[in-house]
Amino acid sequence: MNGQVRIERLAVIGVGLIGGSLARALKQAGSVAHVTGIGRDAAHLERARELGVVDEATTSLAEGVAHADVVAVCVPMGAYDAVFRALAEAASETAVITDAGSTKRHALVAARRHLDAGRLARFVPAHPIAGGERSGVEASRADLFAGHWCVLTPTGQTAEDATALVEAMWRATGARVTTMDAGDHDAFLAAVSHLPHLAAYALVNAVRKQGDEAHDPFRFAAGGFRDFTRIASSSPVMWRDIALANRDALLAQLAAYRDELESLKAALEAGDGEALLAAFSAAKKARDDWLARKDGGHG
Amino acid sequence: MNGQVRIERLAVIGVGLIGGSLARALKQAGSVAHVTGIGRDAAHLERARELGVVDEATTSLAEGVAHADVVAVCVPMGAYDAVFRALAEAASETAVITDAGSTKRHALVAARRHLDAGRLARFVPAHPIAGGERSGVEASRADLFAGHWCVLTPTGQTAEDATALVEAMWRATGARVTTMDAGDHDAFLAAVSHLPHLAAYALVNAVRKQGDEAHDPFRFAAGGFRDFTRIASSSPVMWRDIALANRDALLAQLAAYRDELESLKAALEAGDGEALLAAFSAAKKARDDWLARKDGGHG
Repeated sequence: MNGQVRIERLAVIGVGLIGGSLARALKQAGSVAHVTGIGRDAAHLERARELGVVDEATTSLAEGVAHADVVAVCVPMGAYDAVFRALAEAASETAVITDAGSTKRHALVAARRHLDAGRLARFVPAHPIAGGERSGVEASRADLFAGHWCVLTPTGQTAEDATALVEAMWRATGARVTTMDAGDHDAFLAAVSHLPHLAAYALVNAVRKQGDEAHDPFRFAAGGFRDFTRIASSSPVMWRDIALANRDALLAQLAAYRDELESLKAALEAGDGEALLAAFSAAKKARDDWLARKDGGHG
Repeated sequence: MNGQVRIERLAVIGVGLIGGSLARALKQAGSVAHVTGIGRDAAHLERARELGVVDEATTSLAEGVAHADVVAVCVPMGAYDAVFRALAEAASETAVITDAGSTKRHALVAARRHLDAGRLARFVPAHPIAGGERSGVEASRADLFAGHWCVLTPTGQTAEDATALVEAMWRATGARVTTMDAGDHDAFLAAVSHLPHLAAYALVNAVRKQGDEAHDPFRFAAGGFRDFTRIASSSPVMWRDIALANRDALLAQLAAYRDELESLKAALEAGDGEALLAAFSAAKKARDDWLARKDGGHG
């Protein structure tokens, strides 16, 4: 179905970086006829309409989704409960519902809490693994998802035609689509995305607290520190929501990380250069191998 | 003395990224008449001579430093003991000795162990805070230090004219020079450089160990992970040496970091969104403020 999908009416709830980029990508691919943008901020929505990201905009979720064939939920995880509660009333029984959130079990919990069995079967959880530090519809672009993974986590209750449509929709954006269990997805993402964010926030805080009026602890921070902590400039609200939504998997990752740090600490205390070298070398090899697999090694 | 320094004969021990860049920068500034490169690998030294980085090259440290006015030790921390032992015999009594190592107490320990009081008074520990993932003389460049800090850590025993000469030398490379206590330097660098390296190595290892033949744990790693772990592709040997050389300061930083992680873990376990938001926001603000102070905010 690659690129062959055609959606007559798409409703995007939350027209920010992700929702805006989805609309742009599908329009560019000729895969959507009409896009309704739904949000809480009328001025922001008007901006999205002026930019041509959406054809029509409304602050009324019920009105915006009423005639949609596909509803894409692109709001922060913290808003899921309210959005799915509203969708339970407002979405048509045949509409396919999907989302773009970072933690899929949380999305399923919100959907199961509010949707009836019929609508639940039309819900296909999805996570396009793309983004950036910039946010908002102004940062959205048609090629945001091109070449990136989009993970779908349908369940045994999910209708196959709904999954097929959502898969075709994401392929039309240029994404590589794969399907897996929601719990597996959340564990993978906790490791390579959520844990690094907490680790970066924690490190900046550890350094910050060592400063006083006479000493700027960041004074000698250089390029390595800047790269390492870049994700600590991400949205605190978004990452609070993600951390809470993926709490169990993230706690497991924090425990694994603590064990690694403790093992380095023990080697350092013992002056065990061999153990340090082995740990550093294994990490370097794993990262270099990953980059070589990924894109030819530009790190 | 900015830019006015003139060194007749400079000996660079270890002609890699740092030593090569120092030679290039001083030549370009017209601040040195003759550079002798000293190292263990004759082919590598010949390459440095062909590139014009050094005027003369030798694998004999004694021969290379015999007539030098300034000796710059630009070898890995793990080689300091051997190099200072050799300098105790080979360096002239009037030569100014400096180094470029990442941990200054370790440099002082090696110098005090081997140099007599006269030569020790001519040793000015220095740390140019610049570098990169690439290494070797091929990566060296005249502007590597321009605009970066170079920290000098002279002691009460250090001759003032020696400190003044080393300060002028580093200013001639374009570096911003400051002076502080070696212990303070090591604590600062442990926080913003050494700890991030250990944190990145540990994180890659924590993820790596979750993989098996069926699952590539890095499969969904994206840009944030790449930036966060970039420094985990640094030289394992160099970082083993630095970690051991700055062990006490680094252990203190690891403890502070563990406390921050534990505090995030406790907030997460309690489902305390307010505490998470406060921690993430404080970190984001500290990082954003640092970038604004540093260079106008390009993160």
